[in-house]
Formats: sequence, C-alpha cells, structure tokens
Amino acid sequence: MQVKQIKPEELKYNGDGLIPAIVQDVETKEVLMLAYMNSEAVAKTLSTGETWFWSRSRQKFWHKGESSGNVQRVKEMYFDCDKDTLLLLVEQRGAACHEGYYSCFHYALAGDGTVTVKGEPLFNPEEVYGKESK
Amino acid sequence: MQVKQIKPEELKYNGDGLIPAIVQDVETKEVLMLAYMNSEAVAKTLSTGETWFWSRSRQKFWHKGESSGNVQRVKEMYFDCDKDTLLLLVEQRGAACHEGYYSCFHYALAGDGTVTVKGEPLFNPEEVYGKESK
Repeated sequence: MQVKQIKPEELKYNGDGLIPAIVQDVETKEVLMLAYMNSEAVAKTLSTGETWFWSRSRQKFWHKGESSGNVQRVKEMYFDCDKDTLLLLVEQRGAACHEGYYSCFHYALAGDGTVTVKGEPLFNPEEVYGKESK
Repeated sequence: MQVKQIKPEELKYNGDGLIPAIVQDVETKEVLMLAYMNSEAVAKTLSTGETWFWSRSRQKFWHKGESSGNVQRVKEMYFDCDKDTLLLLVEQRGAACHEGYYSCFHYALAGDGTVTVKGEPLFNPEEVYGKESK
C-alpha cells in the first residue's frame, strides 16, 4: 500500500476541463449515473463529502440533490490508472435518476437492438421538479 | 415494461463521436474500467458479445483482451436516461487494468487528497504487454 497526495488539478481533464465521474451505490453496488466534474467540483466533493458536478447543459455547478433532496453522501472515491475517470461510492437517498428511477441505467439494450425498460420509477418527476424540467 | 428498437447511431455521442462505456463485473458488481466507443464499436460489441472500444490514444478499434487474452463477455448492456453513457455488465477473465490490477479504479482518494493503492496486481504488465507498453 503506497500512500501519496494528489490535488484535484492533477487529475486529467478533457478539452472542456471535465472528468467523468461514475456514481455507484456503496451498498447494492448498482451503478447509478455518470456525470462530469471540473477541478473545482472535485474539490467541493472532497471537502463536503457530497457530490458536486458541473452541469454541461446549464453551465453551472450542480449539487446533486439540491432540487430533489436526494443527496449523495460519498463513502469512497477512486481515480483510475489513467487519472481521467472518477468512481464514487455513495449512499443514495431516494432515486438518482431525474426520470424517477433508482438508477439512470434503466434501458436494457439487447444484441439485436431491442430496448427494454427495467424497474419502475420511485417518484413522479413532475411532482419533484415541476412540469418544465426535462 | 416498454419495448422498442434502437440503432447504435441513435445514441448520443460527444464532439469526437464517442460515448463513454462503464464496464462492471456482472458477478462482483465491481466497476472495472471506463473506455469510449464510437457507433461502430457499439455495433461490434452488440454483434460479437465482447467489448470493442475506440482507442483515443491509438486512434483505432480496440478489442479488449486482444493482447492480454482477458476478453470481456457482455452479459447485460444498458444506456442511460440521456442516451449519452453506456453500462456493460461483463464476465471479466483475468485483470481488466493494464497495470495488472483487477479494476482500473485502485487509487483511493480521501477528502484530504491522500491517495492509497488498494489491492495487489494479478499480473506483471511487462510480461503480458512487453516493456514498451505503458
């Protein structure tokens, strides 16, 4: 077990200054979502112990759970051998997906292109985010 | 359970024509790696049942396991609610990481920036890929 120190800015970011962050449920090990962080969002996540992302569509910081209350408490955090991807194991409160499903990965794709929706939504997105949200 | 059909080109790719693909062990649920596919790599993965990626550094198709023999048999495949990320649950033979570790995510990052290497390599990369490989 080697130990060293790393600063958020020493991770590898893409041309837009972002690094993909995989979010996994620490208990069930289900992969919940993938979102992007810039180095400041990485720093905020490390210091607060909750997930902060950079929203590409809204071009602003996004504290996951801000609107829905479904915050993610970070229990373990990893970066990969290329330093260009993060993996966060979290305690997920409620559903992670804005469509109301527990995981964003609820569209199963078969080899012949058939798509099957797995599971059931845990909440009605219109009630949580209002009718205007996607 | 709604059922429909989707073609690889109907997924959402980034400006470089790529979509991130998270690879997870179907049995242990450990997240092994993240790599990128273009629509042709998605089609090859669907038709062969093994993972095919687009290597950004080498700018060519990359059939995972080609050099090491550690191929990944795809057991389940998902896309997310934004259609811009894939999740593949695979049977992993041997180690997924080119550094010889089972998972590429073996660098644990603590809130204060301390990095701890978790686990032990399963193989010596120099013996598998030769001394020139990174």
